[in-house]
Amino acid sequence: MRYMITFSYDGSNFNGYQKQDGCRTVEECIENALYDINDHSVTKIVSSGRTDKGVHAKGQTAHFDLNVNITEYKLKSAINSLVPDDIHIIKAEKVNDDFHARYKVKEKTYKYYLNIGEYNPMERNYVYQYNRDLEIDKMKDAIKFFIGTHDFKNFVSSECKKNSYVREIYSADIEVKNNIIIFKFTGNGFMKYQVRNMVGTLLKVGKGKLDSNSIKDIIDNPNRKKDVLTIKPEGLYLEEVKY
Amino acid sequence: MRYMITFSYDGSNFNGYQKQDGCRTVEECIENALYDINDHSVTKIVSSGRTDKGVHAKGQTAHFDLNVNITEYKLKSAINSLVPDDIHIIKAEKVNDDFHARYKVKEKTYKYYLNIGEYNPMERNYVYQYNRDLEIDKMKDAIKFFIGTHDFKNFVSSECKKNSYVREIYSADIEVKNNIIIFKFTGNGFMKYQVRNMVGTLLKVGKGKLDSNSIKDIIDNPNRKKDVLTIKPEGLYLEEVKY
Repeated sequence: MRYMITFSYDGSNFNGYQKQDGCRTVEECIENALYDINDHSVTKIVSSGRTDKGVHAKGQTAHFDLNVNITEYKLKSAINSLVPDDIHIIKAEKVNDDFHARYKVKEKTYKYYLNIGEYNPMERNYVYQYNRDLEIDKMKDAIKFFIGTHDFKNFVSSECKKNSYVREIYSADIEVKNNIIIFKFTGNGFMKYQVRNMVGTLLKVGKGKLDSNSIKDIIDNPNRKKDVLTIKPEGLYLEEVKY
Repeated sequence: MRYMITFSYDGSNFNGYQKQDGCRTVEECIENALYDINDHSVTKIVSSGRTDKGVHAKGQTAHFDLNVNITEYKLKSAINSLVPDDIHIIKAEKVNDDFHARYKVKEKTYKYYLNIGEYNPMERNYVYQYNRDLEIDKMKDAIKFFIGTHDFKNFVSSECKKNSYVREIYSADIEVKNNIIIFKFTGNGFMKYQVRNMVGTLLKVGKGKLDSNSIKDIIDNPNRKKDVLTIKPEGLYLEEVKY
C-alpha cells in the first residue's frame, strides 16, 4: 500500500533533508520511524525533492510503501509519536501505486523571509536578519524578470549537474509585512541554490549594486554568473507542493 | 554616568534571566559585555525584573553605571558586538543618576502565545503548541476577572515570598490571529509564575474544566490555590516596560 505524507520541519538542527552517513537528517528520522511502523522492515521514502541544510519546510511531501495496512489518521499519529519535535506530519494519505512524490509534481512554492527592521533574536533561525533598508520598489521591478520559461543555469549551484537547466516560474512576487520582506516563487521545479541565488541577487538590486533590468541580462548571459549572490538558508521555506 | 538599555532575548537556551553560578544567563552575558566596555571593571546591571527559564523578552529594560563616557549609539553597537546572538540591545539611553529600572516601573506588559491549530515545529520554542480547540468566548469572559486591584497570592509560585501580593492589572485581553491565541496583560507588576498561572487557569476554563466565574472565586478564596495551573514558559514574552 502506497502512502503520501505532507510534513513540516525546522531545518535549523538538521544537516539538510537528504540522508548522509553520520549526520542528522530529516529523511533518516522519518525512515527510522517508518521502520518501526512497517513491521521492522527498511522503508525508503521518496520526497518531492531535497532541501539544503538550514532550510525549513511547511509543506514538504513524500511517498513510501508499507506492508502493513494502517488508517491515514493512525499513520499520522504513529509517525508523529516517533519523530523528533522538529519534524511534524501534517497529513498522511493513501495514494495509488503509481503516485510518485517527485515525478508527479506540478507546482512548487518557496518563500524567503528577510527582516529589514530591528534584529529579532527569536527569529534569527527563521527569518534572515538583514536589519537594514532596501529599495523595495526596485526589487519588485526586478523579480518580474524571473517569471516565465528560462535557462536558470547561472542561478544554480555549480555542483548541480543537469541535462537541462530550463524551468518555468509561474509567479514571483514580493510582499512586505511589518518590516519583513517575503519573496514568493511558484514554478514547476527549482534546482540546488536556485531560490537562494535569485533572492541573493535581488538583494543586490535592493542595495543599489545592480539595477532592476540586470536580472534579465544575468539570466541570458553565461558570463554574468559572477553577479549572482547566494543568500543564507535560514529565511527559506518549502511552502507547498502541488500534484 | 547612568545608562538604560531596552533589549530582547530568546529565552530558549538560557537558564533564566538572573545570574546563577555555572549557568548560562542573560544577566551574565550582558555584564560580561559591559566588563569589556567599562574599562575592565565589574559592572552590575539592574533589570526591571527577572524572567524564568524559557521565557522570552521583546522589551526588557535595565540600568547600569559606566565610568567611561560613550554615546548611546556606540554603546548599543558595542554591547551587541559582545553579546551572543540570542540577546539584542534595541536601544541604549543616558538617564539621570536617580533612574532605577526596577523601582521606577509604572507599567509592564506580558503576552502569552498559544497555538490551537496544527503543530508548528518552527514555533515550538516560541508559541505553546496546544494544538487542540478551546472555548475562546469563555476565556474572554474569564480573563476580565483579573482586571483591577487584587491579592494574587493564589496565582504566585509558593517559592515567592512577598510582604504583599496585591497588584493592579490595568488591562487583560485575548486576541485570536490565524489559530494563535494571544493573552495580553498590562499591570503595575507581576510576581513569579503569575502570568503563567493566570494563563494556565484560563486554559482550564477554555477546556471546560472550570467555568468563567470561577476565576473570581479562585482570586478571593485561599483554599482554591489547587485549581491554579502553571502553563509552560515558551509562549511567554515580556513585551514592554513603561516608566
